[in-house]
Amino acid sequence: MLQTIEWTGGAVRLLDQTKLPTETTYVEITDEKHMHDAIRRLVVRGAPAIGVAAAFGVYLAVKDFRGDGTLLAFTSRLNEACDYLATSRPTAVNLFWAIDRMRRAARDAGRDSRNAEEPLAVDLIKARLLSVCKEMLEEDNRVCRAIGEHGVKLLEELGADAKSGEVNVLTHCNAGGLATVRYGTALAPIYVGAEKGMKFHVYADETRPLLQGSRITAYELKQNGIPVTVICDSMAATVMGQGKVRAVLVGTDRVAANGDVANKIGTFGVAVLAKHFGIPFIVAAPTSSIDLSLKTGAEIPIEQRDGREVSEGLGKVTAPPDVDIYNPAFDVTPADLVTAIVTEKGVVRPPYGAGLRTVCRR
Amino acid sequence: MLQTIEWTGGAVRLLDQTKLPTETTYVEITDEKHMHDAIRRLVVRGAPAIGVAAAFGVYLAVKDFRGDGTLLAFTSRLNEACDYLATSRPTAVNLFWAIDRMRRAARDAGRDSRNAEEPLAVDLIKARLLSVCKEMLEEDNRVCRAIGEHGVKLLEELGADAKSGEVNVLTHCNAGGLATVRYGTALAPIYVGAEKGMKFHVYADETRPLLQGSRITAYELKQNGIPVTVICDSMAATVMGQGKVRAVLVGTDRVAANGDVANKIGTFGVAVLAKHFGIPFIVAAPTSSIDLSLKTGAEIPIEQRDGREVSEGLGKVTAPPDVDIYNPAFDVTPADLVTAIVTEKGVVRPPYGAGLRTVCRR
Repeated sequence: MLQTIEWTGGAVRLLDQTKLPTETTYVEITDEKHMHDAIRRLVVRGAPAIGVAAAFGVYLAVKDFRGDGTLLAFTSRLNEACDYLATSRPTAVNLFWAIDRMRRAARDAGRDSRNAEEPLAVDLIKARLLSVCKEMLEEDNRVCRAIGEHGVKLLEELGADAKSGEVNVLTHCNAGGLATVRYGTALAPIYVGAEKGMKFHVYADETRPLLQGSRITAYELKQNGIPVTVICDSMAATVMGQGKVRAVLVGTDRVAANGDVANKIGTFGVAVLAKHFGIPFIVAAPTSSIDLSLKTGAEIPIEQRDGREVSEGLGKVTAPPDVDIYNPAFDVTPADLVTAIVTEKGVVRPPYGAGLRTVCRR
Repeated sequence: MLQTIEWTGGAVRLLDQTKLPTETTYVEITDEKHMHDAIRRLVVRGAPAIGVAAAFGVYLAVKDFRGDGTLLAFTSRLNEACDYLATSRPTAVNLFWAIDRMRRAARDAGRDSRNAEEPLAVDLIKARLLSVCKEMLEEDNRVCRAIGEHGVKLLEELGADAKSGEVNVLTHCNAGGLATVRYGTALAPIYVGAEKGMKFHVYADETRPLLQGSRITAYELKQNGIPVTVICDSMAATVMGQGKVRAVLVGTDRVAANGDVANKIGTFGVAVLAKHFGIPFIVAAPTSSIDLSLKTGAEIPIEQRDGREVSEGLGKVTAPPDVDIYNPAFDVTPADLVTAIVTEKGVVRPPYGAGLRTVCRR
């Protein structure tokens, strides 16, 4: 399987997502400047993957730092690197969370080794920072894997196409392995199912305007040996109407306490179609995406992006100059269109209020 | 208002649609070779517009023809031009229909002038051919205008947005003036309404894969002074959910006897969304698009097009090489999602069977 981020022992190996879908190349990142650049240029993308990458970036910044051997010099270097990496993608919550975790780990390790000689204490902190990075990487795999295990049971219930033996699934955007370390969230049930010998066929919405579906989801499924068909977003109704879709599987950026889910623009429309055709609409969400402080999805702020992503993003100008373009990056799917929310701690079904609280407490 | 096709007295002036949406340029067509090329290269497009253009192409081919002055030589030249122009877009029904109409007109004119000297008879036929071309042009305007007059009544009933005073409408693809001579079908009610002083705001789906919405509909509305906002197809649910759409207006390529309508891929999905949000879904159709020989939409053949239109149509490769791509050019919206079908002979409402038969008989 494709590996988005890997620790080689001395460097971080990233799959270069700027080269997708036409080239599979990897870059080795050996310092924080390269990592900052990689995050900024979307060499690595997807909230969970960005978090892990940034953590490694912090470690790379201090790995070979000597300075004058004092804790003070080390801490100053560390904070500098943390502040610097936090500027790589200014709105990615996981990025700040991961960097904060590294700061805290350094502080805790410093406290634990306060009786050691300073140069030794610095080495102990460095070791702790590396192990936190590896932990985050493993944690991401564990969470995604668990989502996959829970989700695949839902897919097993739906049954396969009589003729092809494949379970036909539609997905929107990329909540796959390339947004995380390996398994992804929405695609995890498919990868886990494939390991168990299940057969799948995925319809990947291309996902305008930035085409994460055709560029990234189609690429990773193909590389990982899962049959995939790319469609334009506007073709989902036709494919569903032809009985070609047993379930819709999507990821989410944020789940409100009532089960409303924010996800890439277009998800809401797919959910309406799924309801019309009686197709289960399944959302995969690590519990870290559940935000119980938000009563409903109406409280989720929706990022409005530059209209040129729509009119100029593809190499040609595709709309009249100065025409008004509406380009929200996300939409909110109301809970009543969501059949189930699959977390690493189990499947939540409507009504979501109690279920989401329970799963967050576990 | 933009004029797609105009007869200047000695040539045909076409708005060059290959230059849209960034340049407004016109080409003067003076012979059938140029017209063939213009149709083939999509300088002129849209079934009604192609028909009229091809008819003029036939006339241009014989306009200055002398030969030996015999009817035989003239007829041979005419047939040659007809056969030649019929190869410009091999699947456009209106093209064949328009060329046939020119052949018939020549035959009838030949019969009417059978007592005239041959050179005179030829001149009489030429004159008849030109008047048939002008008739077709006027007929297209008349039909579109009548659709507009009937359609605008439906829009008046819906009422305007309280704050902006605008009637908010969503459309998909281009069934506008640039697909006909001037008014279009789906957009005709808007142009007629604007003449009457009504205010509109149109949300134009960009319409993947070929982007007729952002490239052509947005362009013509802007040029004709109608406020327009371009959205990706995947944003329609959000815009509807925000209460920004009072009606959906679309064209159609073919209406079956039961009211099922074939139109550009993506129309079906928009119709499902409109139903979900309780928004009227209105189809504009000249009665020439109603095909009573087809019981239901299931009998309408759907053209499958090259997947590269999806993955390579925009100047960049946007999907992995050799990935499977499904690219139907049209979809069929079932009659039960259609609120009304507006023809030049009046508005048909469900159940459609009897209504469509009546309107075709009128």
